[in-house]
Amino acid sequence: MASEFQSANLPPVDEGVGLVQTHSVELFAASHPLELESGGSIGPVTVAYETYGTLSAAKDNAIFVCHALTGDAHVAGKYAADDKKVGWWDGLIGPNRSLDTNRYFVICANVLGGCQGTTGPSSINPATGKPFGLAFPFITVGDMVAVHLELARSFGIEKLLCVIGGSLGGMQVLKWAARYPDTLRSGICLAAAANLSAQGIAFNAVGRRAIYADPHFHNGDYYNPNGPRNFGEDGPRYGLALARMLAHITYLSELSIERKFGRRLQHSDHLAYELQRETEFQIESYLHYQGKRFIERFDANSYLYLTRAMDYIDLAAQYGSLQAALGKTDARFLVASYNTDWLFPASQSREIVTAMLQARRHVTYLELESVFGHDSFLIEVDQLKELVVPFLAETYRQAART
Amino acid sequence: MASEFQSANLPPVDEGVGLVQTHSVELFAASHPLELESGGSIGPVTVAYETYGTLSAAKDNAIFVCHALTGDAHVAGKYAADDKKVGWWDGLIGPNRSLDTNRYFVICANVLGGCQGTTGPSSINPATGKPFGLAFPFITVGDMVAVHLELARSFGIEKLLCVIGGSLGGMQVLKWAARYPDTLRSGICLAAAANLSAQGIAFNAVGRRAIYADPHFHNGDYYNPNGPRNFGEDGPRYGLALARMLAHITYLSELSIERKFGRRLQHSDHLAYELQRETEFQIESYLHYQGKRFIERFDANSYLYLTRAMDYIDLAAQYGSLQAALGKTDARFLVASYNTDWLFPASQSREIVTAMLQARRHVTYLELESVFGHDSFLIEVDQLKELVVPFLAETYRQAART
Repeated sequence: MASEFQSANLPPVDEGVGLVQTHSVELFAASHPLELESGGSIGPVTVAYETYGTLSAAKDNAIFVCHALTGDAHVAGKYAADDKKVGWWDGLIGPNRSLDTNRYFVICANVLGGCQGTTGPSSINPATGKPFGLAFPFITVGDMVAVHLELARSFGIEKLLCVIGGSLGGMQVLKWAARYPDTLRSGICLAAAANLSAQGIAFNAVGRRAIYADPHFHNGDYYNPNGPRNFGEDGPRYGLALARMLAHITYLSELSIERKFGRRLQHSDHLAYELQRETEFQIESYLHYQGKRFIERFDANSYLYLTRAMDYIDLAAQYGSLQAALGKTDARFLVASYNTDWLFPASQSREIVTAMLQARRHVTYLELESVFGHDSFLIEVDQLKELVVPFLAETYRQAART
Repeated sequence: MASEFQSANLPPVDEGVGLVQTHSVELFAASHPLELESGGSIGPVTVAYETYGTLSAAKDNAIFVCHALTGDAHVAGKYAADDKKVGWWDGLIGPNRSLDTNRYFVICANVLGGCQGTTGPSSINPATGKPFGLAFPFITVGDMVAVHLELARSFGIEKLLCVIGGSLGGMQVLKWAARYPDTLRSGICLAAAANLSAQGIAFNAVGRRAIYADPHFHNGDYYNPNGPRNFGEDGPRYGLALARMLAHITYLSELSIERKFGRRLQHSDHLAYELQRETEFQIESYLHYQGKRFIERFDANSYLYLTRAMDYIDLAAQYGSLQAALGKTDARFLVASYNTDWLFPASQSREIVTAMLQARRHVTYLELESVFGHDSFLIEVDQLKELVVPFLAETYRQAART
């Protein structure tokens, strides 16, 4: 009797958003190109994007997810049932998840300058018929956001319910609010800052140096027209892998490295006393693996352009003050930093919050606890859920009244 | 009248140790080579060293300075009157300075495996008549200390009044106490640890990777027999410079980078919006300069060997426990960490101090305040003076009684 009901009482299997596809759209026709913050222009711009959930008739339930430095449009779900990997923020998105696709329409697009389907340095330059390489124009976080907004408008959306992102994604959220203050009802800015710290610029500079110094860089003109679309084949593999290894260290906390790897050895209980074992310690092996994986999916030129955009953004400098930058929007804001994040320390989130308070904006701030350093925003999705669900629900409730 | 005396009343000009010379001695004859911790052996070993002050008749006033990763024997004074540079810890050493050369005899030697006069990978391999390169045997911090002690013994010194060092130099101090516990009356260990953290290994791994991946590395066989003794000419310049740029970031605190450079630009008030300006921000320019300077004075192979020795040292693992490692010496210890040092955080110094307390040793510990991060021990010499002067005086007083 009771046992018959037990299986029926089990919670339904949580499948997330299920199978998804990446779509592509061409925006900014050559006759109406995107005017770049640097003064140049580019058009047309191809944009790779995914959507989950259903856009409401009133087009008032759209959430735009801005990805971080090396992310892409594939934020949730699988391309095929037997995919082992899901989208990079899958735990956050789906029916009854934080970005509840039963209620909200979620959009994510690969950024301008990227290499996962949106126009970037590896795209074909219409003027030459060959990949742009370093002929690609200089782009900024503001330009990325301009493309995102244009994509949203192509759906008929004039005002996003929310724009959310972490790290460079969070920088996009802030820039969006500064540049297009009337186009979002709320922003969620995680593990981010209104400008990169000097230390962050320093790490980026070393990573770029590794790419520039690689003899296979060939001034950015390393694409093989006959090769597979695998950036790792012909480009500055060592330089890009090295940049990734270095960056990866900055994404982890000292504590998480210590707990996960410590001084454990990869293949033995005993030190080898050999100089050229580059992967003797587990942490070394892990970093080498991360570098190797990265070059299979990322383009070195995109890495150069996107890290430089990250260095350049400085809302206080660009708008006179942080208060001026963030004071024009009526959007409600949720800002969160992580106590072990040393790349985007809590002090930088507090600057954002202070500026918003001074500008009498609505802002909620939490310094969250996690051992995972900068990567916490990608990992601690359950922790985020407690904040994001009520924040979005209240935003949506207020939106419905206006 | 009074004015006549004023100039006479001015304090005497503090000239430090004045003009100095680097000396060279050959230790460990081929017939009695140095037995290495890795199991191999090497001999003879040439050692470059400097001394300041006068060794007492009782040979009881000798202080050994252990240098850090890229230091050398030239710790104080100038080689010529018009030298612009003084030794790397000049402010600490001289008449009436912390290591008072009116009282003490100070020795510093370039470490085994180094490239500033002591036998290392760039030295001529007697077996081949060519530089060792990667044929140089694997060396450890314990091997470095063995050579230091042999040098002290060549002066007839059986017991050092003090062994002092910061960073890798501090690791040498600890290893000295563990391996040769009866040969020192005191140790001063600054900004160091009984083992490198996993994060530290990670940074070293990326730096070494940059050297290995440089096409001019040639498996370590890059010395030009006809070139000047300038390691930068023919070796893996880019890789070594990159390793240095990266390491340099870890030596500074986020606060000191922010204060010294912030987001200031090198040549303009305005962003250039050009991708390939690698030195647009001052911090970038500074790091590139540091990399360039470094390759003029340092050998890439030495960098590989010395960073690996730094990765390998682990007193707790090698002696069963930290308490066992540090409990055998009667030496008095002064341990200091710096609050902004994230490469060798205070927690690692506290481990040392706790182990010594548990072993009922004499130890004094201070967590010092400084904005300069790991480099603080090199910069904050006035702060050190307050601690080092009485610590050495008391050690000397006790030594005189025994």
